Amino acid sequence: MRPSQRRPDELRPIRFTRGFTRHAEGSVLVEFGDTRVLCTASLEPCVPPFLKGKGQGWITAEYGMLPRATHERTPREAARGKQGGRTLEIQRLIGRALRAAVDLSALGERTLTLDCDVLQADGGTRTAAITGAWVALREAIDRLLANGELDTDPIQSQVAAVSVGLYRGVPILDLNYAEDSSAETDMNLVMDGEGRLIEIQGTAEGHPFTRAELDSLLELGAAGIRTIQAAQRAALED
Amino acid sequence: MRPSQRRPDELRPIRFTRGFTRHAEGSVLVEFGDTRVLCTASLEPCVPPFLKGKGQGWITAEYGMLPRATHERTPREAARGKQGGRTLEIQRLIGRALRAAVDLSALGERTLTLDCDVLQADGGTRTAAITGAWVALREAIDRLLANGELDTDPIQSQVAAVSVGLYRGVPILDLNYAEDSSAETDMNLVMDGEGRLIEIQGTAEGHPFTRAELDSLLELGAAGIRTIQAAQRAALED
Amino acid sequence: MRPSQRRPDELRPIRFTRGFTRHAEGSVLVEFGDTRVLCTASLEPCVPPFLKGKGQGWITAEYGMLPRATHERTPREAARGKQGGRTLEIQRLIGRALRAAVDLSALGERTLTLDCDVLQADGGTRTAAITGAWVALREAIDRLLANGELDTDPIQSQVAAVSVGLYRGVPILDLNYAEDSSAETDMNLVMDGEGRLIEIQGTAEGHPFTRAELDSLLELGAAGIRTIQAAQRAALED
Amino acid sequence: MRPSQRRPDELRPIRFTRGFTRHAEGSVLVEFGDTRVLCTASLEPCVPPFLKGKGQGWITAEYGMLPRATHERTPREAARGKQGGRTLEIQRLIGRALRAAVDLSALGERTLTLDCDVLQADGGTRTAAITGAWVALREAIDRLLANGELDTDPIQSQVAAVSVGLYRGVPILDLNYAEDSSAETDMNLVMDGEGRLIEIQGTAEGHPFTRAELDSLLELGAAGIRTIQAAQRAALED
Amino acid sequence: MRPSQRRPDELRPIRFTRGFTRHAEGSVLVEFGDTRVLCTASLEPCVPPFLKGKGQGWITAEYGMLPRATHERTPREAARGKQGGRTLEIQRLIGRALRAAVDLSALGERTLTLDCDVLQADGGTRTAAITGAWVALREAIDRLLANGELDTDPIQSQVAAVSVGLYRGVPILDLNYAEDSSAETDMNLVMDGEGRLIEIQGTAEGHPFTRAELDSLLELGAAGIRTIQAAQRAALED
Amino acid sequence: MRPSQRRPDELRPIRFTRGFTRHAEGSVLVEFGDTRVLCTASLEPCVPPFLKGKGQGWITAEYGMLPRATHERTPREAARGKQGGRTLEIQRLIGRALRAAVDLSALGERTLTLDCDVLQADGGTRTAAITGAWVALREAIDRLLANGELDTDPIQSQVAAVSVGLYRGVPILDLNYAEDSSAETDMNLVMDGEGRLIEIQGTAEGHPFTRAELDSLLELGAAGIRTIQAAQRAALED
Repeated sequence: MRPSQRRPDELRPIRFTRGFTRHAEGSVLVEFGDTRVLCTASLEPCVPPFLKGKGQGWITAEYGMLPRATHERTPREAARGKQGGRTLEIQRLIGRALRAAVDLSALGERTLTLDCDVLQADGGTRTAAITGAWVALREAIDRLLANGELDTDPIQSQVAAVSVGLYRGVPILDLNYAEDSSAETDMNLVMDGEGRLIEIQGTAEGHPFTRAELDSLLELGAAGIRTIQAAQRAALED
Repeated sequence: MRPSQRRPDELRPIRFTRGFTRHAEGSVLVEFGDTRVLCTASLEPCVPPFLKGKGQGWITAEYGMLPRATHERTPREAARGKQGGRTLEIQRLIGRALRAAVDLSALGERTLTLDCDVLQADGGTRTAAITGAWVALREAIDRLLANGELDTDPIQSQVAAVSVGLYRGVPILDLNYAEDSSAETDMNLVMDGEGRLIEIQGTAEGHPFTRAELDSLLELGAAGIRTIQAAQRAALED
Repeated sequence: MRPSQRRPDELRPIRFTRGFTRHAEGSVLVEFGDTRVLCTASLEPCVPPFLKGKGQGWITAEYGMLPRATHERTPREAARGKQGGRTLEIQRLIGRALRAAVDLSALGERTLTLDCDVLQADGGTRTAAITGAWVALREAIDRLLANGELDTDPIQSQVAAVSVGLYRGVPILDLNYAEDSSAETDMNLVMDGEGRLIEIQGTAEGHPFTRAELDSLLELGAAGIRTIQAAQRAALED
Repeated sequence: MRPSQRRPDELRPIRFTRGFTRHAEGSVLVEFGDTRVLCTASLEPCVPPFLKGKGQGWITAEYGMLPRATHERTPREAARGKQGGRTLEIQRLIGRALRAAVDLSALGERTLTLDCDVLQADGGTRTAAITGAWVALREAIDRLLANGELDTDPIQSQVAAVSVGLYRGVPILDLNYAEDSSAETDMNLVMDGEGRLIEIQGTAEGHPFTRAELDSLLELGAAGIRTIQAAQRAALED
Repeated sequence: MRPSQRRPDELRPIRFTRGFTRHAEGSVLVEFGDTRVLCTASLEPCVPPFLKGKGQGWITAEYGMLPRATHERTPREAARGKQGGRTLEIQRLIGRALRAAVDLSALGERTLTLDCDVLQADGGTRTAAITGAWVALREAIDRLLANGELDTDPIQSQVAAVSVGLYRGVPILDLNYAEDSSAETDMNLVMDGEGRLIEIQGTAEGHPFTRAELDSLLELGAAGIRTIQAAQRAALED
Repeated sequence: MRPSQRRPDELRPIRFTRGFTRHAEGSVLVEFGDTRVLCTASLEPCVPPFLKGKGQGWITAEYGMLPRATHERTPREAARGKQGGRTLEIQRLIGRALRAAVDLSALGERTLTLDCDVLQADGGTRTAAITGAWVALREAIDRLLANGELDTDPIQSQVAAVSVGLYRGVPILDLNYAEDSSAETDMNLVMDGEGRLIEIQGTAEGHPFTRAELDSLLELGAAGIRTIQAAQRAALED
């Protein structure tokens, strides 16, 4: 039995609260069980210097964790004076994953910044962040389409993510913190609406894993992502 | 009429959601209208170096604002690599205000860190933060008393804060963002449960103010704080 | 008897040495007893980015303390790689206080930077800095008026500041370091030439203070500032 | 035809120059074609604070690139005052990959730091770095075994890495810079001596990839790594 | 004729004001004409980590310049978040020069920090700083000898410094800012009380200089330093 | 006998490997015995802001040391978040020395950055860096002349450098690390092709040195530099 008492292929309850805050062009609180991430999409009518004059837009992301989102208090990055390697790695991943699903030319010279701030952490914050950020992005783009600022939808596909891992040799889906800490292998999958891979990141924590184990993790993750994508669509229809 | 349509002496709806997150020893979401601040109290069984071996505890605070808590996105301080002057000023104020109400010797060699993170800003974030942080502190201390880790209560008084200001020459209470931006004078008051002053910070934004204007602001603020303190007590009784 | 042996309402000897250094457009060494602060005003024919093209000027301040201005050597902020919270708080206060007395539109697209560097500290450095910086500002503006670069005087009022506090329950004026360290309450007042308040910052260090105590501190401070403003005017007439 | 004119499954010439510098406990210049990375292993008889007293050792890595290792000069990270996100991500990967092959308890309270500095870049610097760092690590451990400082070999497996990608839909092995820039998908594989996966990181740069494409990339990479591991062993036997 | 109208071998008026500030163990304002540097010596009863337990002391220096010490305002290093290369170079030089004249073993486990802060700059700030810092050091050591904290004098020699340069081919002594800016060669000399060299730093600004030119600069500098050292001794006898 | 067993006036074997890396406009590995420095020249078609529109070019240098270039591993400056004082001092010296030999007007609005990265250190890295950087600069300029981008050669003189020192009272040439550590005096000389001085930096490490000792060091260094300059010319003729 896995620590969370869930079946190996069972997701945590997944919830999207749209309009969680009011100023942002998109604002979604995403929950994967006790993991709660506030994802906001902020629109600016300009692009970073390296894209000036190229007639395309940009999507970028920033990630943060409130100091006491975690079991033990984590020092505040703003106070330490820099973002850690883990933070930079995660925010690069989120931005890359979303850009893979957007036609930046169709976006025009606009930047959308997805801020993903973890209010409470219980494992899987990066996959929850990608999943929620896509919904916030969708909201912001829908507003541009509704306003007539955009004619064609630059979003080409739906994006969601989940973690999978091997716990005592058994593939399990959507690891919480306790499971993540004791898993032998930890993998994050990001997929599009057609079930294709946008990103795969797998790490052998305890011992290297075989090709067969990789295959079973991929199956499990793909099924989980299909369920999560249905939840995203349901949230957007509300 | 003031921009918020409230009467000059009318507070915004004030709400405390206790247990908003689960890991911290105290965790309160405080709302003053659309201003929402998550205040957590984190306990560590040690003190900063300058207090080592002095047999007393420490209370400190950190303040942050999510990038899109504001109308326009504010750059993330962790990404910029430092906390701004405003942030440092506010977190120093919060810590000072709470320490004024606590007997640090009675706390023993423990540190309580109050993290005040603004999820949504609409004026008065620092006074909301002080008000919410005191509730979170109260929760954390109550837990230590309940556990038997502390015998006597180190909290000597209740602490709450509110802003007051002069808007077109009229003293108004609990300014929202629109009011704060156009007020001629802006003052923050922190008071204890006996109506005594812990901190007063008043700034002439538009034009200097007279002693008579100061007096009327002090009256207004004192009345507002009494109401807020009743709300704090009610929240703690739930 | 207060530690400095002065009467409760007695200021320290206050001295202004104009032209203390020769390059700056305004340069004043201000002394409040053993507290000595060098205040220089530097003129630049441009404004910060957020004011570009708005047809107005800017006044800003920076504050520093030489490492051995204090009893114990304080680490150099340039070597530590950042300005501390206290420094930022003080320099924000100085800038705000001076701007409250200047018509920035009448200044034109110019920036005046007031550098306040503490050569020797014995309490009250921020109030001495504001008081000296106003004299340096006055010198710099007088030069612009004399040169014909300005036609109308942008300075609308005289600005001075002083500290007051409660020492063993007695209100005292212009605290030195020893008094400041043992006062129960510490308050800084900034006033204009008409006796109106520009800034009030009061903190209960030892125990919260009553409204009656606040009133007595305000009286004491207002009287002290009148004397200091007379000294400012005398220095400018030399 | 791929830009490098190589067959899809053809590696670049791979070369290891052992003892490239003389001070380090292990020192290897690894070349994958025009990509050249100097990998040194430095031994210190202590562990980082979080491992103090746990009776185990630590393996960590740092990555850097000389400013003109690249086609255009890249600003020096030391001069910019921080390591970029890409650098942190790569050095975390190198450290993680090597730790997966070492029994840290058998290493004793020692730290081995693998510095991987890119002298010349032509794509695949991170996989070359992992591959070379393992040889430098092997050298450093062999020295400890030869000295009698260690009795049992803490290295449990051989580690090598390679990049694979989809170029115009065709899976290709060991991408150079030109190929990497135009590939639709880019994947880095790290495997142990038994052909098991230590790390898999795949990113859809151009368009998402299917499970079948992933499978073909994994086959190609696994074959490449077998060849690279043979070259590592040959280098160590010299 | 040189810009300052002085004879080629003429020093500026040199003045030492001892006890310029009151907290430091040594405090001297040194003036070389319009160049004014405040040099304080601060004593701490400990040594930096790399000297712990070696039974010797340490002498170090820090250098700073007030923002408006110069003709144009220079950005404050504390605000920029780092000390510039010129600052670091100068403070390393001051520390090295003073250590060359002190028996660090005879000093015991104490650190003396010489802070050299330029209040007004008109060329030659580094040589003035060394010259003044030695007097402040002498004061601090004399106090330790007088107190009985030291039995034997750790200072082995007198240290002073001066700049020399080639101006239109003529060797000139003690350059002010205008001369320094237009000199072809600029050299700083630090010598001990016996006329031996502690440091020589010469730079061809305009064109390389010959050995004969170097010789004439050395003569000129040596004579200047003898006069400066007499002034140091006179100041200490007051 | 000196530690390296060389005669007092004997240089280490000096070697230049041109084209050591392929992307840079100039790229030279210079070796002085076991000291190995990679010097690259990078061309950019622009100048720093302070030279904009002045019709001249700029030459600058950066210096770095790989962490394990030294006997003990040195912390990586990029990871520490800043360049140390020694690094800044050396790179300022390299830039200054090269600029002294170049007519910046003849260079046009171009910047040449000389990156000097120490792959292995055994004393004399800064003098090796200057010596190698001049060869890399020569290569880059020759390419501009060959391309027709420049008509006249902006390089006015050949530049080389060497260290000299007093070891047990005997002047020795080109100190290695062991000699440098135990020398009483350490001097770096930079000279042009006509034997004139561009820079002289001498420091008394153990005891102050006399004028006679300085003279003998200058002789020794001048002879060494003549030999090194012959080696530079030979390398360029290959």
